[in-house]
Amino acid sequence: MKIAVIGGGSWATAIVKILTENNDYVGWWMRNEEAVDHIKKFHHNPHYLSSVELMTEKIDVSTNLDHVISEADYVIFAVPSAFLKNALESLTIDLSTKTVFSAIKGIVPDENVIVGEFFHQKYNVPMENIGVITGPCHAEEVALERLSYLTIAGLDDEKVDTLARHMESDFIKTKKTDDIIGTEYAAVLKNIYALAAGICHGLGYGDNFQAVLVSNAIREMKKFIKAVYPLKRDINESAYLGDLLVTAYSQFSRNRMFGNMIGKGYTIRSAKLELNMVAEGYYAAALIHEVAKAKGVKMPIAHAVYKILYKDKNPKKTMSKLTDKLN
Amino acid sequence: MKIAVIGGGSWATAIVKILTENNDYVGWWMRNEEAVDHIKKFHHNPHYLSSVELMTEKIDVSTNLDHVISEADYVIFAVPSAFLKNALESLTIDLSTKTVFSAIKGIVPDENVIVGEFFHQKYNVPMENIGVITGPCHAEEVALERLSYLTIAGLDDEKVDTLARHMESDFIKTKKTDDIIGTEYAAVLKNIYALAAGICHGLGYGDNFQAVLVSNAIREMKKFIKAVYPLKRDINESAYLGDLLVTAYSQFSRNRMFGNMIGKGYTIRSAKLELNMVAEGYYAAALIHEVAKAKGVKMPIAHAVYKILYKDKNPKKTMSKLTDKLN
Repeated sequence: MKIAVIGGGSWATAIVKILTENNDYVGWWMRNEEAVDHIKKFHHNPHYLSSVELMTEKIDVSTNLDHVISEADYVIFAVPSAFLKNALESLTIDLSTKTVFSAIKGIVPDENVIVGEFFHQKYNVPMENIGVITGPCHAEEVALERLSYLTIAGLDDEKVDTLARHMESDFIKTKKTDDIIGTEYAAVLKNIYALAAGICHGLGYGDNFQAVLVSNAIREMKKFIKAVYPLKRDINESAYLGDLLVTAYSQFSRNRMFGNMIGKGYTIRSAKLELNMVAEGYYAAALIHEVAKAKGVKMPIAHAVYKILYKDKNPKKTMSKLTDKLN
Repeated sequence: MKIAVIGGGSWATAIVKILTENNDYVGWWMRNEEAVDHIKKFHHNPHYLSSVELMTEKIDVSTNLDHVISEADYVIFAVPSAFLKNALESLTIDLSTKTVFSAIKGIVPDENVIVGEFFHQKYNVPMENIGVITGPCHAEEVALERLSYLTIAGLDDEKVDTLARHMESDFIKTKKTDDIIGTEYAAVLKNIYALAAGICHGLGYGDNFQAVLVSNAIREMKKFIKAVYPLKRDINESAYLGDLLVTAYSQFSRNRMFGNMIGKGYTIRSAKLELNMVAEGYYAAALIHEVAKAKGVKMPIAHAVYKILYKDKNPKKTMSKLTDKLN
């Protein structure tokens, strides 16, 4: 069985590292030709997780998307959601015969859908060939080989099981689930809540409040996912609560950082410029707002973030009002 | 209505500060005579939260426990659990006619019961006159007037409501519940989990793993509390999950610090000496072990901590085995 990873960033690099522990062939696509040459020559990704020594003898790294995907049975997408459509532009071969796993934490801009739905709708990948890989997992800790748990979600048990076995190693444990929509929405929502945590931190709220915010956020997440995709699930499993915790409590989360700048008084435009990127939670807030409205789910925290980001509402006043709705 | 606070530490000082926002009389007992004199003269507790300017015109501070308690209708105990019995030694008047709230986060050593049960069994306080005050709430953030949420638990709605109204202010919001046993056990358990988080941190586990540990801990807590005191409750409310988060993720938690030293290779004896105190979680681990055994509840995390603290088991091996039981 051959697996390919699509993306040249830190999460893609981490997944390539994970796969080489346990597989003799790993396909790897990235756009940047210089980076590909560097990896082949020096066995390190020059731009991301550059400390990681890659086992290049097992890695088929290339800028040719058709080649990388045609070689693979399983394709793992790990580009930032904002670049997914762009990355797929050079694809000319059929994706619908592949098993596609999304390790993308976000939603597809413009399309306004979660990644699984995007592959199903736009690339005719059958739902049972689609899966999701979620954390809690900072790429930086994979680089250090610190024990991490991944959740592999998919409707086809056998495929989930196969990928899980290929990802397990001394420092990776896996958990399997069929909650493909729930885990993906959890990964989307957590970025909104990390943004909220960042805004509140920037406004001067402390740890006591953050604990209340996160404990409300997980209840809000539970309510939303239940409305979108009813299924017996324990929201306190690692893929939901764990993933929320590692993001909301991380100083390194870009969503939290983005939120922090908003809380400190940056305009959204200047925060974007300063970070030289758009945090996933920014797009997520718009999608979740729409879905929540359509489903009639009340989400005070996500709604507060939405109003601050899209309705030009004052962060201090908006969050102060929010505090009355939490408990 | 007159309220008194028992204890001279940082949590007691924080509660006195909270009460003076909203009450003209606050009784306050502490053992240390010098500290009482200092507070009267300089309006600051010399040893704890010393930056807080106390409204001493509203405070009746004294080393005479009989006096402070006889004046009060509601008595809030906020001494470390290890010193509770000692603090009560000088009491000669009847406590059973008072409404007693415990703000103690732990269990009573030797007696091996949670604080509510202790007052009920040893001081004949009727269960409907007993209540619990829990966080998530670091005293240090109360000193800074950072927004915090307290949960007030008790069987008598009116008493809970009365205390809640007397504690609310610009920086304190309250939530009410009748889950007196559940909230108290949550406050006890969180210290064990903070100890576990500290041990793992000391052993070199990272944030990815901590998120998995905490997401398993809250499930373990839910199972335990349900077995001990079945009641319809949402374990993700602030008094359970929130309190766990603020403790497990705080670098300042003494339980986490104690655990960290054990993880780094200190013996339990030398960790105790170094910290010049015993972390609440240490006693809690023994009690919870007993109760869990009696109730037949499997608690892999609490059990690992118990084995390390009481059975001289190797922290590295014990935690490594634990990782196979988490998901």
